[in-house]
Amino acid sequence: MNKQVKEDILKLIKESRDAVVCSIDAEGCPNAKAMFVAKEEGLKTFWFSSNVSSSRVGQWMNNGAACIYFMNGDKIRGVMLTGEMQVCKDQETKDAFWKPGDERYYSLGPTDPDYCILKFIAQKGNYWGQQKYLFDVSEMEG
Amino acid sequence: MNKQVKEDILKLIKESRDAVVCSIDAEGCPNAKAMFVAKEEGLKTFWFSSNVSSSRVGQWMNNGAACIYFMNGDKIRGVMLTGEMQVCKDQETKDAFWKPGDERYYSLGPTDPDYCILKFIAQKGNYWGQQKYLFDVSEMEG
Repeated sequence: MNKQVKEDILKLIKESRDAVVCSIDAEGCPNAKAMFVAKEEGLKTFWFSSNVSSSRVGQWMNNGAACIYFMNGDKIRGVMLTGEMQVCKDQETKDAFWKPGDERYYSLGPTDPDYCILKFIAQKGNYWGQQKYLFDVSEMEG
Repeated sequence: MNKQVKEDILKLIKESRDAVVCSIDAEGCPNAKAMFVAKEEGLKTFWFSSNVSSSRVGQWMNNGAACIYFMNGDKIRGVMLTGEMQVCKDQETKDAFWKPGDERYYSLGPTDPDYCILKFIAQKGNYWGQQKYLFDVSEMEG
């Protein structure tokens, strides 16, 4: 994959405030929901905040298989990253992502036991641009 | 669920040209991609056209578990439907959905063996609107 395509993918991700994030439920069915991306690090790591009590977090605690999908406004270009979702409940990570106003979602503040951070680690990617590209995320880094 | 919420869900779907459609790959990981909705029947049945040779169709031939997800422009409201994806290769169904111009994707025309129709049958739903609603699709019909 050439440099331009990698830049196109990173631009598509940067321009998307949200990703559609997918898990697998207890019945083995895929689930999807748009989630705000709290932070991304290249194509490898993406962070989200969520409620421990949510059905979605329960699904990842049971099965970490996940994908995240970004698309442009007209939904013609898109990039899917597949990998693993980790549920981070340690105070250091929770503190690092806490923002003023988050009390709306986690009323007890950064130590709220229902507040957690989700860390998605991408392994493979699929980009639909001018043409289709399959890639290993590790080959795209560095 | 009241009538207004059902109407809100149907309106959200009608206004979305595309759905994000999810499958499970051979490694047990969810996959997602935006797909154009060829036809929908209420909240129960949704039709898409695709290539038999695509990785996505191969995944559904192996495991019919699927979900489709619609969201509004600012991605705050969304509806997820989970259920089963059937791959229809019979000529009657293929003829029913064929449109002029589809030769771009299926060069041999409506009898192209690489042309198929996907039929999604919804069982359960999850709507994020003013509040969150879980529902059985069968209870929403009729």
